Amino acid sequence: MQRTSFDQMPCPVARSLEEVGEWWSILILRDAYYGLTRFDQFAQSLGIAPNMLTRRLKGLCEAGLLERRLYQERPPRHEYVLTDKGRDFRPVLWTLFAWGNRHLAPEGESVVLTDPETGDAIEPMVVDARTGRPLAKGVRVVAGPAATPGLRRRFEPKTAI
Amino acid sequence: MQRTSFDQMPCPVARSLEEVGEWWSILILRDAYYGLTRFDQFAQSLGIAPNMLTRRLKGLCEAGLLERRLYQERPPRHEYVLTDKGRDFRPVLWTLFAWGNRHLAPEGESVVLTDPETGDAIEPMVVDARTGRPLAKGVRVVAGPAATPGLRRRFEPKTAI
Repeated sequence: MQRTSFDQMPCPVARSLEEVGEWWSILILRDAYYGLTRFDQFAQSLGIAPNMLTRRLKGLCEAGLLERRLYQERPPRHEYVLTDKGRDFRPVLWTLFAWGNRHLAPEGESVVLTDPETGDAIEPMVVDARTGRPLAKGVRVVAGPAATPGLRRRFEPKTAI
Repeated sequence: MQRTSFDQMPCPVARSLEEVGEWWSILILRDAYYGLTRFDQFAQSLGIAPNMLTRRLKGLCEAGLLERRLYQERPPRHEYVLTDKGRDFRPVLWTLFAWGNRHLAPEGESVVLTDPETGDAIEPMVVDARTGRPLAKGVRVVAGPAATPGLRRRFEPKTAI
């Protein structure tokens, strides 16, 4: 497949996509959040070909989202554990989760996010951490301190996302 | 590339990934949020091969995230406009944006999300829309009303994401 390397782009969205690599990587992360750590567990959960799983796990380790650890010496066995950077990717999963349940579950929800204390269903919403203001009310996009001149020209005063 | 069709999976994350299709689709959506609507604008912004752009735009239209509209009759010219379903995908972009800026911008931020009223930088955070509780404090994942028996067995009382 023809594909530009997104990590040459200054956009943080493009870089995130480059870093995580492939759809499989996101499902591997999902399973890691669910508590899976071993190759066989991921393989069984995802129905993914072993060579593809090997490649994706390697990619996630190189990107610093997972860490490969020896958990048994004879014979050597490794497990894959989330790093802080990997755990920090959870908000992307929550929002994908919410969108999928809203738009792609015509038969009803198969999986639901709930509050661990009350058991009530949770509805993910993105707000500004500092003010609590929902981002749905409007977000302006502006060139940051490290922006190239080309990027500065790109954003008009009203560019939003 | 070997790839399972994720839309056979009941997980809303897997279905979302299937629906949006490819990394390029997310960058096309980003540009659509930024205000681009025409083929040439997307092509120039993304540096994407025309045949790939055609395919991705078609996919986003079929998935109902973009709508193809005639804006000029002679010669016929079309533009691509976000639908409600497409606009509703923005939270995924906000969280990718935040993660990318936090972990993948060692030279400093090139692009910043800001509050349109105050101009202050925004820090996206996911909360429960009903209680305002940050999801980072813990989210339980449980089988929903449409879950298959296999899926019900999968989630233990403590499965979280």
